[in-house]
Amino acid sequence: MKGNQQSERLTTQQKAADGVLGIFEESAQQHDKKVHRTSILTMEQLKKEFPMLEFRYRSELLKQEINEALQKIDQSLGQTLFLPNARIKPDGGIIEVKDDCGNWRIVVVSEAKYQGKDIKNIKAGKLVGKNHNQVLMAAGNAIERAHKNICEIANFMLTEPYFPYILFLEGSNFLTHDIIVTRPDGSTYTIAYCNGMLNRLDRLTAANYGMPINTNLCENRFVSGNGLTIMLQAASIYTQGNGGHWKDVEMVSIMMEVARTSLRMLGKDLFQQLTK
Amino acid sequence: MKGNQQSERLTTQQKAADGVLGIFEESAQQHDKKVHRTSILTMEQLKKEFPMLEFRYRSELLKQEINEALQKIDQSLGQTLFLPNARIKPDGGIIEVKDDCGNWRIVVVSEAKYQGKDIKNIKAGKLVGKNHNQVLMAAGNAIERAHKNICEIANFMLTEPYFPYILFLEGSNFLTHDIIVTRPDGSTYTIAYCNGMLNRLDRLTAANYGMPINTNLCENRFVSGNGLTIMLQAASIYTQGNGGHWKDVEMVSIMMEVARTSLRMLGKDLFQQLTK
Repeated sequence: MKGNQQSERLTTQQKAADGVLGIFEESAQQHDKKVHRTSILTMEQLKKEFPMLEFRYRSELLKQEINEALQKIDQSLGQTLFLPNARIKPDGGIIEVKDDCGNWRIVVVSEAKYQGKDIKNIKAGKLVGKNHNQVLMAAGNAIERAHKNICEIANFMLTEPYFPYILFLEGSNFLTHDIIVTRPDGSTYTIAYCNGMLNRLDRLTAANYGMPINTNLCENRFVSGNGLTIMLQAASIYTQGNGGHWKDVEMVSIMMEVARTSLRMLGKDLFQQLTK
Repeated sequence: MKGNQQSERLTTQQKAADGVLGIFEESAQQHDKKVHRTSILTMEQLKKEFPMLEFRYRSELLKQEINEALQKIDQSLGQTLFLPNARIKPDGGIIEVKDDCGNWRIVVVSEAKYQGKDIKNIKAGKLVGKNHNQVLMAAGNAIERAHKNICEIANFMLTEPYFPYILFLEGSNFLTHDIIVTRPDGSTYTIAYCNGMLNRLDRLTAANYGMPINTNLCENRFVSGNGLTIMLQAASIYTQGNGGHWKDVEMVSIMMEVARTSLRMLGKDLFQQLTK
């Protein structure tokens, strides 16, 4: 995805999210661990937009619950549990809706990852590395851990026709185009997005089968081959490809878009409440 | 899985692998990075057992190849590539077989992970931690990165009815039952397998949908729900649950078992060579 496209998309999303602006400050806020807060804001917005539905937020999901969901599908699944209290905690938590049968169904799961401080370092005129003589810091691979929770939630929703998992990325390891950073002395440095030392987006795209990033992939695709039909559970990966920070309003807007897709996909099971 | 069962299984496998014993030393060898070597040995054994087939070994797979495989299934997949030379390198590499149409098909992919030095530390009478006063070291979560390559290979084999991915585990973070370790002074310490500070098996079982570990899950299962039929691509996770080290002969035996399943699943596409 080109930077312009992304920028346009986000502007559109920002406009669409005007309705929630009153809830929080519009000013640029830092990404870090605020995805939890934006997730709570998203739930508040969902309650306003769908007053006939009941929502809840929770910060974790027990492996035991995942196992039970798998066992319901097939007795051979979800059999192992080594630590009885094992659980997953996506940092943005989980928003659920109560369906017509009284069961809680997932609407949005979100995680936010920050990796790569190069922009910040260059802006501060700071050199890095063992001898403090490098402009760029070779990127780590900790981001690969993101696949675990995606896999857990995919299992929990194994036969659901939608997968509302959002991964928000930020930092110099997730650029989608070159950016120019200005040092304190006024000189500039261009960070190439395709620098192998930095870019770690390819470590994540297995989670969306190489489909476009910055795209709502919540509604599952079906593909065929070898006489089989395969349902794809693709994470929706959003990155600040221009090196910027995520704003609350952008994150809430994206979460709302995914949440609306989830609710539509659940329409059959929410019908009574929607038409009451 | 109980330790006894695993032990019995491995003994049986060891016997079944007698045929390859001549290739390498039978003595107990350390796990570490030898999975590459055992994978090569497995290929040699496959050549002996199936002389009518052609095998090859490779240590890496380009993301570009994964993308091409996905694109063949559906044009909307495999579209993103940020670093042209992005690749995955499962540490045991990839064994492939040439099918009747001249295409290379995957037979075994293996990785080996060692995590948790507590047994070694206790045996050496060494205390750990910042103040050198702890018996056990709290386990890390780096093992969660294992999901990435599993996901990549699953995509590469998206419509194949088998998934020959083996994960060999070793170390105190992957115990399946309690073990007693003797210190240099003769005193003993019991490591409980279900100690939350140590056990990290639950961080991996999403990769096999909570099906049994120490089991060949190469042939894909199909499950139904919500009007859908879902094909499961489950990694075969093998652990040294009693704190021991993997022996070459055990690893080769497991790889051979999985490889035979792959070849059987590919039977239709190998038929001409098998019956020539």
